[in-house]
This record gives sequence, structure tokens and C-alpha cells, in this order.
Amino acid sequence: MVKIITSPSNPLVKHISLLSEKSKLRKETGTFVVEGKKEIMLALKGGYQLKSLLFNPAIITFNKLNALLGNVILETECIEVNSQVYDKLAYREGTEGVIAVMYSRENRLDQLELSVSNPLVVVAEATEKPGNIGALFRTADAAGADAFIIANPNTDIYNPNIIRSSIGCVFTNQVATGKTPEIIDWLKQQKIKIICATIADDSVSCYIMDYTKPTAIVVGTEDKGLSQEWIDNADYNVIIPMRGQIDSMNVSVSAAILVFEAVRQRLQGSR
Amino acid sequence: MVKIITSPSNPLVKHISLLSEKSKLRKETGTFVVEGKKEIMLALKGGYQLKSLLFNPAIITFNKLNALLGNVILETECIEVNSQVYDKLAYREGTEGVIAVMYSRENRLDQLELSVSNPLVVVAEATEKPGNIGALFRTADAAGADAFIIANPNTDIYNPNIIRSSIGCVFTNQVATGKTPEIIDWLKQQKIKIICATIADDSVSCYIMDYTKPTAIVVGTEDKGLSQEWIDNADYNVIIPMRGQIDSMNVSVSAAILVFEAVRQRLQGSR
Repeated sequence: MVKIITSPSNPLVKHISLLSEKSKLRKETGTFVVEGKKEIMLALKGGYQLKSLLFNPAIITFNKLNALLGNVILETECIEVNSQVYDKLAYREGTEGVIAVMYSRENRLDQLELSVSNPLVVVAEATEKPGNIGALFRTADAAGADAFIIANPNTDIYNPNIIRSSIGCVFTNQVATGKTPEIIDWLKQQKIKIICATIADDSVSCYIMDYTKPTAIVVGTEDKGLSQEWIDNADYNVIIPMRGQIDSMNVSVSAAILVFEAVRQRLQGSR
Repeated sequence: MVKIITSPSNPLVKHISLLSEKSKLRKETGTFVVEGKKEIMLALKGGYQLKSLLFNPAIITFNKLNALLGNVILETECIEVNSQVYDKLAYREGTEGVIAVMYSRENRLDQLELSVSNPLVVVAEATEKPGNIGALFRTADAAGADAFIIANPNTDIYNPNIIRSSIGCVFTNQVATGKTPEIIDWLKQQKIKIICATIADDSVSCYIMDYTKPTAIVVGTEDKGLSQEWIDNADYNVIIPMRGQIDSMNVSVSAAILVFEAVRQRLQGSR
């Protein structure tokens, strides 16, 4: 049976609105908000569980949703909302008509399942802008990386701006978050080579590096770069050769250059 | 002599405010607005001419500005403004204290000076988001590309959001804008190989391509890709191998992967 909510001041509507805004509430409840058909489908495909589904029949009917998402929605609390309620909750301009509350995951390091032979892992430390984190998720997906790991995160990955700018790649990647020291320990245990993108005394060109063995590519923030802990524990520190007047790159751009150099080498079988 | 303006409704203040907002006014007057010390310095270094300089002495003194920018400011209309006026004009939060009006350029194709032996040119068609255009400028600078060309531009390059997101690389690159057909003709005249990033029937992996000869790397919009005109006139259409669940990449990320593959090949002398 489908419930109906018509008032923007309904407690559930208020709760969902807060859930979009507050990382703390997402952690407390173990839930988060996903907007849009494609994103919800990717989350379901990635094994996430639905808690509730709100839809605006002026944009999408229950039957269409059922056809799209499958019978899982028959076991889900489905709530019909009017445009007034929908517009209050929708982050984007209202073309999608559907918003889900889903159960989040812990995203622990020990839950990652790496490919046996030759994992490629992308690590970002303390990235601040949701747009950059979303772009890193996209790059990790595009490269077919085994996992994307966020060290010392500034926000949880279920921030709506991250989900949106990742165009759903939050759900297509294996993800873990953790403190820098535990991630370094874990990478060493897994015998994964730590390659840090950073300007250090011993940095070498990223193009003389071999990425065909188990590899983690680690990037820091645009402002401050990587913490000393990463630099000290790196197997190699690399720089992208810069041939212009400005000596900095956007973190998502530099990560993509390094990660796709690894893809190239792995496709071609060597550097 | 330094003028003083204390009223946000002063006609010049209103004019500068409009100049930030209106592409049309920038074209009509042949001027544009630059905010920030670093950006103004890069524009001067790039040969741009100052028209006026507004500064807020609560943030930066005239003497400091003089030390920073050199004697050019003695020949420039310098205007001291108070915080009220500065805050009205400043795009960023007010930490810089200086805003310049500068003379723009035509940015015609026939003004570009390419390296004789082996030019590398980056072309973007109809890119919409200023943040993406700014990122493309940064990539072209970082790669030491000969020029960045915008085909069928949606805005002029002196849009404050483009200047800001390029972190001043608008001024460090040679730039041209034009219609797609004239750019294609020009590239052919210059005997520059046209390599389009696009999914076409004849697309090949970007990693089997040789970028060590005169090369233009051409990218389209994230939504619609490149126009048929580019695809038909390409020497090669290439795709970045995608190994994930999502089959699209941010335009500035994919351009960076291709442009830095060219950098790698040129550094290593071969693919």
C-alpha cells in the first residue's frame, strides 16, 4: 500500500530534509538520501537496501517506478508526495520525481575485496570539495579500480553533493574510509605499492614508474598536498611533469592522469 | 594621483559590477574585470594592459600594490575604495583587496604563434560550465600546450568564473575562439593532426595513437559530445578505454588524460 503525504511540514519530510543536510544524522540513523532514477538503480545494483521511496506521480507513476526498479519496491515503504513536498526535498530541479532513503554501509577497510592478482587502488586524503570527491569516484569507476579509499575524510560519502557529482559512482566502486595510519598499515599488509602524488625531495616523474604490480595511487588536497605520514611511507613519490607557468593541478585531474597511466600500462602489459 | 570612491552607487562601481556580469558589455567595451593579486600579475605577465585598478587600503596599501605590480600602476587610473564598495565588487570573499579592469583581446586564430616543429593544441567545443573551461585552461598550461582553442564558445573567456577556476591560466595560454568550420580549416592549413575524443564507428583506443607529431586534441561537451563536423573531419577518433559501470567522464578529466598521454609520449620520444 502506498502512503500519501501532502504537507511539507510532515515529520517524515522534515526528517528526510535533515538527512540530506546532516552528516551526523546520516551516521546516527545508518541511512541516507538518494535522488534520481539512475542513482537509485546504481545503488540497488551495488547491493544497497531501500528503506523508503518517495515519488511525485506528477513526474513518475508508481507503475513506472515498479517497472524500473523491480519488485524490491513492493517490499519498500512507498510514499506518494505532491509537487510541493517533492520540491522541498529535491536537490535538483524536479525532473526525476523519485527520492529514496537507503541504508548506508560502514565502508571498512577489512570489507574490501581486492582482485587476487593485481589490485589497483585509488586513495584520496582529506579531499574537501564534494565535486572533487565525486570526480575521483568517477575516475576510479572508469579505470576499473578495485577500490576507492578516503583517508581522514572531511565528510561522509553519502553527502548528496558527492552522490550527485559522482553521477552514482559512489555506488559502483568498492569504498572504504579510515585514518591515514590504518590505511597505510592495511596497504602494506596487502603488499600494495604506495605511490604518492607529491612534490618531495625524492619525487620522480610519474612516467618512469611501473604501475603494473599491485598499486595504490595516493593524492592529497589541492591546498596542502599529502600529509607527511603518506610521504614518509610511500614506496615512491611521483610528480606529473608540469610544463606551464602554473605549478598546481586540480586534484581530480591529477589523479585521473596517474590512474589512467596505470590503466595504459596494464592494457599494454608494460610501461 | 589616486581617486577615492566611497559610494557603492558610484557610476564607475556600477559599471564594473555590470562588466563582471555581462559578456555583451565586455565585448562592447573591450574590457573585463580581474580580481586578485596573482591573477592580475599573470595577466600583466601575459601582456594584458591595465585600464583601472581598484584597491581597498584596509586589505592592501597602494605601496604594496606598487611593489607587487611595478611601475605600470603609475600609468594606470588607481582608485581607492572602502570596504563597502570593495565587497560589492569582489567575487571572492575579500582577502585580496584588488580588482583590475583590463583590456581584452580578440583571440583570433590567425594571431596564434605555434612552435615551429611540433605544436600541441587543445580544442574544446561548446563547453558550458565555466569550471570545466577553467580546468581545461589549467590542463593546457600544465601540459605546455601551444594554444587552447574554444570552438563555438557559449561565453567569452573573460567570464569571472572562468578566470577564477582557471586560477589565471586564461592569461598564461595562447587562446583563440572561433566557429568549428574555421578552426577545422585552420588546423588543416597548419597540417595539425585532428584527434577527436568521441565514440564513433571508427574510434580507436587513445593509447594506440601517436601524439608526437603536430596534434590537436579535440573534446566536446559532456552531454552531447562533439558535433558531426568534427567527427567527419577528424584524422582519428579516439576513446579512453572505460573499464567501469559508468560510460562517461567529465570533459576536463578526459581532456587531461589525452593531453598528458601526448606529454608522456613527447617526453619519452615515442609511444
